[in-house]
Amino acid sequence: MPRLLLHRLSMAHPGDVSELAALFDAGALDPRHIRAVIGKTEGNGGLNDFTRGYFTQSLMLLLAERTGQPRAALAARIPCVLSGGTEGALSPHFVVFAVDPEGQGAEGLALGTAFTASTPNADIGRASQIAAVARAVRDAMDQAGIVDARDVALVQVKAPAGEGPQGKALMALSRAAAAFGVGLALGDIAPEAAREAALLRDLSIFCNRASISSGVEVRCNEVVVFGRARGWAPGIRAGVAPMRDLLDLAGVQAAFAAAGAGSPGGEVLGVIAKGEPDASGMIRGRRHTMLGDTDLDAQRHLRGALGAIVAAVAGDGRVFVSGGAEHQGPPGGGLVCVFAREAQT
Amino acid sequence: MPRLLLHRLSMAHPGDVSELAALFDAGALDPRHIRAVIGKTEGNGGLNDFTRGYFTQSLMLLLAERTGQPRAALAARIPCVLSGGTEGALSPHFVVFAVDPEGQGAEGLALGTAFTASTPNADIGRASQIAAVARAVRDAMDQAGIVDARDVALVQVKAPAGEGPQGKALMALSRAAAAFGVGLALGDIAPEAAREAALLRDLSIFCNRASISSGVEVRCNEVVVFGRARGWAPGIRAGVAPMRDLLDLAGVQAAFAAAGAGSPGGEVLGVIAKGEPDASGMIRGRRHTMLGDTDLDAQRHLRGALGAIVAAVAGDGRVFVSGGAEHQGPPGGGLVCVFAREAQT
Amino acid sequence: MPRLLLHRLSMAHPGDVSELAALFDAGALDPRHIRAVIGKTEGNGGLNDFTRGYFTQSLMLLLAERTGQPRAALAARIPCVLSGGTEGALSPHFVVFAVDPEGQGAEGLALGTAFTASTPNADIGRASQIAAVARAVRDAMDQAGIVDARDVALVQVKAPAGEGPQGKALMALSRAAAAFGVGLALGDIAPEAAREAALLRDLSIFCNRASISSGVEVRCNEVVVFGRARGWAPGIRAGVAPMRDLLDLAGVQAAFAAAGAGSPGGEVLGVIAKGEPDASGMIRGRRHTMLGDTDLDAQRHLRGALGAIVAAVAGDGRVFVSGGAEHQGPPGGGLVCVFAREAQT
Amino acid sequence: MPRLLLHRLSMAHPGDVSELAALFDAGALDPRHIRAVIGKTEGNGGLNDFTRGYFTQSLMLLLAERTGQPRAALAARIPCVLSGGTEGALSPHFVVFAVDPEGQGAEGLALGTAFTASTPNADIGRASQIAAVARAVRDAMDQAGIVDARDVALVQVKAPAGEGPQGKALMALSRAAAAFGVGLALGDIAPEAAREAALLRDLSIFCNRASISSGVEVRCNEVVVFGRARGWAPGIRAGVAPMRDLLDLAGVQAAFAAAGAGSPGGEVLGVIAKGEPDASGMIRGRRHTMLGDTDLDAQRHLRGALGAIVAAVAGDGRVFVSGGAEHQGPPGGGLVCVFAREAQT
Repeated sequence: MPRLLLHRLSMAHPGDVSELAALFDAGALDPRHIRAVIGKTEGNGGLNDFTRGYFTQSLMLLLAERTGQPRAALAARIPCVLSGGTEGALSPHFVVFAVDPEGQGAEGLALGTAFTASTPNADIGRASQIAAVARAVRDAMDQAGIVDARDVALVQVKAPAGEGPQGKALMALSRAAAAFGVGLALGDIAPEAAREAALLRDLSIFCNRASISSGVEVRCNEVVVFGRARGWAPGIRAGVAPMRDLLDLAGVQAAFAAAGAGSPGGEVLGVIAKGEPDASGMIRGRRHTMLGDTDLDAQRHLRGALGAIVAAVAGDGRVFVSGGAEHQGPPGGGLVCVFAREAQT
Repeated sequence: MPRLLLHRLSMAHPGDVSELAALFDAGALDPRHIRAVIGKTEGNGGLNDFTRGYFTQSLMLLLAERTGQPRAALAARIPCVLSGGTEGALSPHFVVFAVDPEGQGAEGLALGTAFTASTPNADIGRASQIAAVARAVRDAMDQAGIVDARDVALVQVKAPAGEGPQGKALMALSRAAAAFGVGLALGDIAPEAAREAALLRDLSIFCNRASISSGVEVRCNEVVVFGRARGWAPGIRAGVAPMRDLLDLAGVQAAFAAAGAGSPGGEVLGVIAKGEPDASGMIRGRRHTMLGDTDLDAQRHLRGALGAIVAAVAGDGRVFVSGGAEHQGPPGGGLVCVFAREAQT
Repeated sequence: MPRLLLHRLSMAHPGDVSELAALFDAGALDPRHIRAVIGKTEGNGGLNDFTRGYFTQSLMLLLAERTGQPRAALAARIPCVLSGGTEGALSPHFVVFAVDPEGQGAEGLALGTAFTASTPNADIGRASQIAAVARAVRDAMDQAGIVDARDVALVQVKAPAGEGPQGKALMALSRAAAAFGVGLALGDIAPEAAREAALLRDLSIFCNRASISSGVEVRCNEVVVFGRARGWAPGIRAGVAPMRDLLDLAGVQAAFAAAGAGSPGGEVLGVIAKGEPDASGMIRGRRHTMLGDTDLDAQRHLRGALGAIVAAVAGDGRVFVSGGAEHQGPPGGGLVCVFAREAQT
Repeated sequence: MPRLLLHRLSMAHPGDVSELAALFDAGALDPRHIRAVIGKTEGNGGLNDFTRGYFTQSLMLLLAERTGQPRAALAARIPCVLSGGTEGALSPHFVVFAVDPEGQGAEGLALGTAFTASTPNADIGRASQIAAVARAVRDAMDQAGIVDARDVALVQVKAPAGEGPQGKALMALSRAAAAFGVGLALGDIAPEAAREAALLRDLSIFCNRASISSGVEVRCNEVVVFGRARGWAPGIRAGVAPMRDLLDLAGVQAAFAAAGAGSPGGEVLGVIAKGEPDASGMIRGRRHTMLGDTDLDAQRHLRGALGAIVAAVAGDGRVFVSGGAEHQGPPGGGLVCVFAREAQT
């Protein structure tokens, strides 16, 4: 029976995969078991952030050496969701999700992955991208053995930014379409609502179980689904909670509580948070300045603030925080997902 | 008997003092009663942040119109501690501290102010600056009627950055010397420890009741002391607590509790926080990237992170957060001070 | 007869008008003769650049003191075109344009000014703004006594950026509409071409005698026209030349030659340059990275590059360089205007 | 007889070596002949610029595939001098220097390379680094067959930035020590002047044939020497000229003239420029703002300005521009080196 394994590893720089190599050397992880990687690199998180591509190249080089499989085949099979930007209290790190086929147990946290076809600039933000992501989510659920969409905890997607100078404008649109695709597949967004025309326009439509980042280093949509399924070994719990705005400390604490992170024996294995600068220019009636800063990108502002709040609750800066939460929560809000080891009983 | 009054006001831009003008127009505040102003403007907080000077000019213009006193005389009498940088969740605002001579009560929160002589570049970070700030703190205590240094809650200082290209290097040194001066006056730093040679070198020496910012728009050290004194009206409480590192959420919560902010009837009137990027490059054993970011100044990183944590606890982005906490707390840590209206009993 | 006078003055910071005060003190300039001010302040030139407002407030305070006229009346009469951003070799400075009524001569360089009504966000980039700017240009020509639009050398406009978070998007649109207005008034753009629908879309439409900047600190369009007119004293020549792209060194040199700047006795009194990052992403077939830099705004890139080229030809960093040359030259190109004292014959 | 070959290639992103692969595929270049690579990547050029490491990894992967040699051996043999930062008009590109053993001719431009041992943080900026670089320069001259130091046109060095948070401070010191080493080897700096204590202090000591960049991705000093030597094929000329300050347009033009770039048949093959923000805060008596900008690093300002001036003369943005010209020219100045194909006679 399969067992999900999480390893949270630090990097000295975006090309540093030495902690993973050390795990392989120590026999603590079989490189063939790796199914997905989610991490934060110390770039600016924007259009000219190449730390994500550098990390991915370095990771695939290591995996190719250790598995004997070609780099291209590995990259086509293992979603590698890197988000740039470790502003403030955040710490560069990556979480390796592996599946050991030799687990024990009746039901546990499962993982499934899928990729869409390559999405050219012209298809970004179109109905075709929404549909392709929805299909990939269903494929990943099937792969994981998740039968009921209500059992899905989180869907993480790395969506393509467009190529060339137009890319900047397309990054948000690509995230929006991917969020619609996830919501459609999970039933959180009705088919008649998940229309191309509503993208970035009707912000009352959202899916609070979708976490989307976008980047120039991917051309297709890479999908990772987490949820409970029969036939997987127990031991890891995922807790998810929405944030109604950037200052929603109670929302952050709820996600940690849902994962049992504060229970005796509970141990946090990974944290994912999404948020966005409130487009109204206000938070709880007070003006913020994230959107009009010519020197400091709004997403860098956002990651620094959201990351610090989540890290303060976690007591640890190794938090995956990604801005650009279009249709992934209420306007100005977001979500937090905590993976924790369950206390032994 | 004097009564301390706090008004927390928002600005649409750094030259906007219209909310203060409205208070005057409504008769809610006598312009002659203003004794100090502490605020955050939306600049970058660095050497080329002119939003502080712009705000101060605008404020003094308004006060000159409403009091009939010359701008220069007002500026020489009223400390105006502006800190640039409203990264992330922070909201541009200023707190006006006024003293109404017609209060009632036996003991309450008192305020005193003092200025040192102008400090030229050559004297920044020297023994003479330390001594001058210490004298100013004692003068401000005398003015407030605070007899015992243990009754001082917080000393806020605006210290001069040097003029010209050397200014950048001198900003930290100026804050350090001012912190030593405060610590010396309060007895938190022993006279034999408060030596010029220890500035920015022996970081084990600090005063957790000193909050220092520095800027190019002041030439002398402007000092504001808060503490309990007989003969002042009750009604406002100041709660201060140290932060041992940037993620010390419990420390932030302790300051709010000490001010009675969570009690029924308690109402937050103003918040001051200081912190700094941990110079070790690590927070709780995890690498942060604030100090090596060529595009984003370490203090902007810090304010965005610290500000968000404090604002999340306050539920309000109007927090005075200032980086550069040299000798104002343990390395990598800082302090939080909360002013709150006491619940009526 | 009127005589145009130019004084190019440096600033130690954006609130520093001491060199102008010194001119008044020395009797070298009558404050009542000032008709327009064009300058560069050391902000970031973007939406949160408040150095322009700070300078303008400081300037109007000085002029109010020296003329006895109220600040508001002066601001409503004297166009003050400040452009933020002194990247690279550029030096913060301002050029004061004054008109002494007691000149001598038959024909010379003339100046006229005009203001439109206040332009709310909803009118920015609409036909009404185009028409209002065109009327203001004609009014300014009338005031200067310029009869033939072919005698106009340059029209400088400060157009309003929108207020609030929408401002960023509106800055370019406002510059575009103002350029159309200038082109319409000068006959460089045909009435049937100067349509709202073509703004920022049909970039083949442009007026190479329009120099537009936009900023949050103005609410109306402020217009200054320069050109030859009878009845003005001789002595100053304006040379204007287009730049076909950012590397058009010959174009820059042509403007200096047209003003006679290199002739014996010729002396440069002021320089204005406009340009923009080529929207194709290429300059002469080679990729540039100005448009996709998340950390450094495209206009800051542009001003640093264009400013250095013009300053290298001038041998002086006091050049007014402003990005955002929509419809003010061919795509990716711009213009240079040089004011020089004519050699005595 | 050896023949020096230059290929100037563009990159779509820092990991893109496809133009080089295409040269190999076309048989236009033998991968075994490559001796050095000098290029500009589109990072920020600072301590957290990882585009250089990404490019180098990508380049070595390609060379390993095409030569069958291990990546580590290639990296230890081929100096790869990448400088981050393509501000303004600059275009990301790299110049491949190859040596074909089958040339013809009596004397021509020669190339030699050498590496020092790894330089730990503690040795950066010490006498040992100066001596090691000097030895490497002499070794590279020997390898090239350059007998007289006067025949050396340029020495390009990639020096190590220190590791960790101290790295920022060490970057300048490392460049300074490498410049002293070059000057010592070429006889441009006397042995008694090239002392550790003079580094970054006595700026009157410099070598105008040294071009040094530093970066976190190298641990040793990588040296490339260019100069005339017997036994090399003719056909390429290197022209070098000093710049006395940032606006020295004549200096830039002199370097192009010296290389015969403007002669009929002359064709520019590569350009290298070094410069620095004038530490006095002034250029030709006018204040610049490069050194006090908290949002935009002084070296980014510098590269944008210097790069544009050189690119305007070249008519091409593919210029290697690197800031940090400590001891590589007079204070505030720098140098330009142009490689051009000689006109056929």
